[in-house]
Amino acid sequence: MRAKLSTFHAALALVALTAVLAPRAFAAGADDAAGTFLFLALALVVARLAGFVERFGQPAVLGELLAGVLLGNLGLSFLDEVRQDALVGFLAELGVVILLFQIGLESSFASLRQVGARALAVAVVGVVVPFALGLLVGPLLVPGQSFNAYLFVGATLAATSVGITGRVFRDLGVLETREARIVLGAAVIDDVLGLILLAVVSSLVAKGGVDPATVAWIVAQSVLFLVGAVYLGRLLSPRLARALARVHAGEGMKFTLMLALGLALAWLAHQIGLAAIVGAFAAGLFLEPAYFDEFEEPEIVQEIRPLLTRAGGEASSELRKILDRHAQRHHADLLGPLGYVFVPVFFVYTGMQVRIELFTHGALLLTALALAAAAIVGKLACGLAAGAARRWVVGWGMVPRGEVGLIFAAIGRELGAIDQATFSAVVLMVILTTLVTPPVLGRLLKREPG
Amino acid sequence: MRAKLSTFHAALALVALTAVLAPRAFAAGADDAAGTFLFLALALVVARLAGFVERFGQPAVLGELLAGVLLGNLGLSFLDEVRQDALVGFLAELGVVILLFQIGLESSFASLRQVGARALAVAVVGVVVPFALGLLVGPLLVPGQSFNAYLFVGATLAATSVGITGRVFRDLGVLETREARIVLGAAVIDDVLGLILLAVVSSLVAKGGVDPATVAWIVAQSVLFLVGAVYLGRLLSPRLARALARVHAGEGMKFTLMLALGLALAWLAHQIGLAAIVGAFAAGLFLEPAYFDEFEEPEIVQEIRPLLTRAGGEASSELRKILDRHAQRHHADLLGPLGYVFVPVFFVYTGMQVRIELFTHGALLLTALALAAAAIVGKLACGLAAGAARRWVVGWGMVPRGEVGLIFAAIGRELGAIDQATFSAVVLMVILTTLVTPPVLGRLLKREPG
Repeated sequence: MRAKLSTFHAALALVALTAVLAPRAFAAGADDAAGTFLFLALALVVARLAGFVERFGQPAVLGELLAGVLLGNLGLSFLDEVRQDALVGFLAELGVVILLFQIGLESSFASLRQVGARALAVAVVGVVVPFALGLLVGPLLVPGQSFNAYLFVGATLAATSVGITGRVFRDLGVLETREARIVLGAAVIDDVLGLILLAVVSSLVAKGGVDPATVAWIVAQSVLFLVGAVYLGRLLSPRLARALARVHAGEGMKFTLMLALGLALAWLAHQIGLAAIVGAFAAGLFLEPAYFDEFEEPEIVQEIRPLLTRAGGEASSELRKILDRHAQRHHADLLGPLGYVFVPVFFVYTGMQVRIELFTHGALLLTALALAAAAIVGKLACGLAAGAARRWVVGWGMVPRGEVGLIFAAIGRELGAIDQATFSAVVLMVILTTLVTPPVLGRLLKREPG
Repeated sequence: MRAKLSTFHAALALVALTAVLAPRAFAAGADDAAGTFLFLALALVVARLAGFVERFGQPAVLGELLAGVLLGNLGLSFLDEVRQDALVGFLAELGVVILLFQIGLESSFASLRQVGARALAVAVVGVVVPFALGLLVGPLLVPGQSFNAYLFVGATLAATSVGITGRVFRDLGVLETREARIVLGAAVIDDVLGLILLAVVSSLVAKGGVDPATVAWIVAQSVLFLVGAVYLGRLLSPRLARALARVHAGEGMKFTLMLALGLALAWLAHQIGLAAIVGAFAAGLFLEPAYFDEFEEPEIVQEIRPLLTRAGGEASSELRKILDRHAQRHHADLLGPLGYVFVPVFFVYTGMQVRIELFTHGALLLTALALAAAAIVGKLACGLAAGAARRWVVGWGMVPRGEVGLIFAAIGRELGAIDQATFSAVVLMVILTTLVTPPVLGRLLKREPG
């Protein structure tokens, strides 16, 4: 092939290629693995391009969500199939698990523990106030429903999803601020509280009462999981790393071990009823760079180290600092490419679930807007419990309901507690809280830098 | 949390944790995303540990295949479900697509073109001889079947799967040898020839004749795809890269663009009936590091560059070389972590498809062994067409039938051309050619270093 190809030849080839390939290529469905490859390619490029919202000071995640809303409402049958595709749903869940694992790796357990009491207070307020508000305003906004319906509306308002907020904090590089730590801690605790609330409400609706033993069991499992994961994780993972390093000390083994621990804890969290992302976050928290000292350093660091003695004194010490820093954070860096692929899939997929049609029903939209206002006010109350931290940041950080809210609403519908209209209003409320948070949080964090 | 935790406390916590979590944790199925997380974690660790076969001079892929055979035959219901899980099947296909994309990136188009004529000769011999052999020995090995059955046995013997061989060449670091280039080129051509053969055989069986227009159409599409992909890819991707770099020039955009092109071509290849991996390989071939010059260099390289002038003369020039080399191959390095995760999934999953029971049926095993012998002899004939290259390496490189052979056999069974017993014997033949190649090829490459 000649190094220089003329545009004329290319145009000719393009026309011929299109003519021959088009009929089969565009009859594609999302029915097979190859269709998912196409969607992945499309979602990756669209999500990355949507990152241009950063130029307007918005977190990249907002662009990804809006790109998803666009893709999901183009009316293309290929994309409509993707929206319900179990494969893509799995890749999206893998994406948010990787995101929370990354956030866990980038957070320090010690600094999270410092804000433990505050996070607990924020979490409790963030469940109690929205739930109470749901019970109060429910009868006003969706009148004539059973008490059970209001229980579920309240539970949905009480949900917190840490995916959106964590991503915004990460996009803006403020994971180490006091507010981010409080919100991350509170979100983990809220997942436990939400699980208990869901169990109580479901039991009330399905059986008309609550078995205290069941509730005690859920509490015991959740607390044991969280404490056990961090406690045992810190104790056992260095030993596991040492043992595996004896078999293979390369980068591949380090990466494999790290990711396997993250995935295993995501699974375990899911098994006891918590969100998989809570397990991934816990795994990220307890994994420390020191556990991976036995593994090889990145290749470029290995190659440059021998040159250190020969470089000049000052240059050498600066170089050493750069090498050490990169070797230290290498274990988290290895996750980067995996994050580039799957994290945007989650946010694009989340955006694709939004049905624009819902926004055109006047009455429904009004109900949803009022519910969203209650949802936001309820979570902003959290800020009051945040102590010395920036209250608005903490409050808004708790606002997105994300997929947790959707799960609560879906269970309510399955149990017959809420009807289709109420369900749609709740879904719209979840969408609104999810879409409105990134720009507001971005603006707040820029106005009052930590 | 105290920095030092006693083993006693850990043991206590472990017992408590197990008691509480065990009942739910081990009732798991592979029925949901979380189950797939667990399998991924398990497969990753087992595959990496199985890499210890490298200590015995074997390619790592053999360990992964055998680990899969072990996992698939433990009789655990969780793993038996995984074997038929569409999610895991997709992740495995993603793995082999990433592998061939990596191999394409690491191969040079110019050096592949140098061996083009040889590769074509090897490919033609590698389809004609095994197919003829299948028609000859079929009636002896599985007597009393229809002529259609022997057509399909021949087609299965003619298949080539480049996944196993490419991985062995890569494991042993010999992708740039003449033999590897011939085999890679021949395997791509074989995929086209195999597609034509399959169309002809299927048409003979289903309609009793062949429509020359259909065959011409398949040939035209395949050739246009391959030529068009490389020709247009080389022309358009630098322009696309420049355009996208203007939106975002970071590492994330570079990685996204590169992977999206690989996935899109995998999808396109699949759409016209070729293997998805052929598309991924073609994409890897035409992407050159120079296309990504507009994107940022790796962070560590960016940080060290300013120090160059301050380091001593000789140290500085060596450092510059290391930095340039890493910046050059950075686009391929970014795929590393993705490969660590998904490539082993493909080989473990492939190993899991092996049913050990099949090996215990005496007559079936004998037939399969004889078929495998014919399969190996048929492909070793390729070596005769390899010219100045090491003939045994080229011949054995073409031996594995992998998933391509399985697809051919499955179509034969669907069309009613081959019965269940013949199908099982063919599957066993495919397994044998797949498992026997890595150790033989490893030994050959070590005995006669290029």
